[in-house]
Amino acid sequence: MKRYGSVIGLSEDKIEEYKSLHQAVWPDVLKRIEQCNIRNYSIYLHKLDQAGYFLFSYFEYTGENFAEDMAQMAEDPVTQKWWALCEPCQVPLKNKAEGDWWANMTEVFHHP
Amino acid sequence: MKRYGSVIGLSEDKIEEYKSLHQAVWPDVLKRIEQCNIRNYSIYLHKLDQAGYFLFSYFEYTGENFAEDMAQMAEDPVTQKWWALCEPCQVPLKNKAEGDWWANMTEVFHHP
Repeated sequence: MKRYGSVIGLSEDKIEEYKSLHQAVWPDVLKRIEQCNIRNYSIYLHKLDQAGYFLFSYFEYTGENFAEDMAQMAEDPVTQKWWALCEPCQVPLKNKAEGDWWANMTEVFHHP
Repeated sequence: MKRYGSVIGLSEDKIEEYKSLHQAVWPDVLKRIEQCNIRNYSIYLHKLDQAGYFLFSYFEYTGENFAEDMAQMAEDPVTQKWWALCEPCQVPLKNKAEGDWWANMTEVFHHP
């Protein structure tokens, strides 16, 4: 199992929309998350003083090939429709890796 | 079990010091974390473009009284010495709750 922590900005005028969407995520989107071997997936929101609002995600990947599973997720038509609603709410960081949407963070500690 | 996501700033000139400390956390600090019913504890680091560096923590609390367990942790002399090394590296957010050091984030999604 491998853990992933990621971060992305959230537009201040889209906070309520993003929260509403995530209070009732479509069942087929959840099913695809499970099929792509993502477990224990949380998203948190906080305002970082003057820097604005950010979303932080944590999940555990239980599969064998993360790139392949993420490619499968990206090919799913329902997931594509879901992302078309979420992405206009989000503000990707400039220092994310090319091809990514959320920026992958560096793990500096884990226990136990 | 209850999940907690938290955030705090990290001074740019203390990044290496903070990383080194967390590559070899003192065994008695880890033991106290376990005794205080904290599990699956991760800390991530990322630079948020112009806003500087931030640490994000995720852990699961398996006890019955979080406030009491956190009070016990704060009373532990070894943990106090550890915090005396970590805290000068960190930059608490202005919008954290009074009495907290890290700012507690809002969970907007969890699955499954």
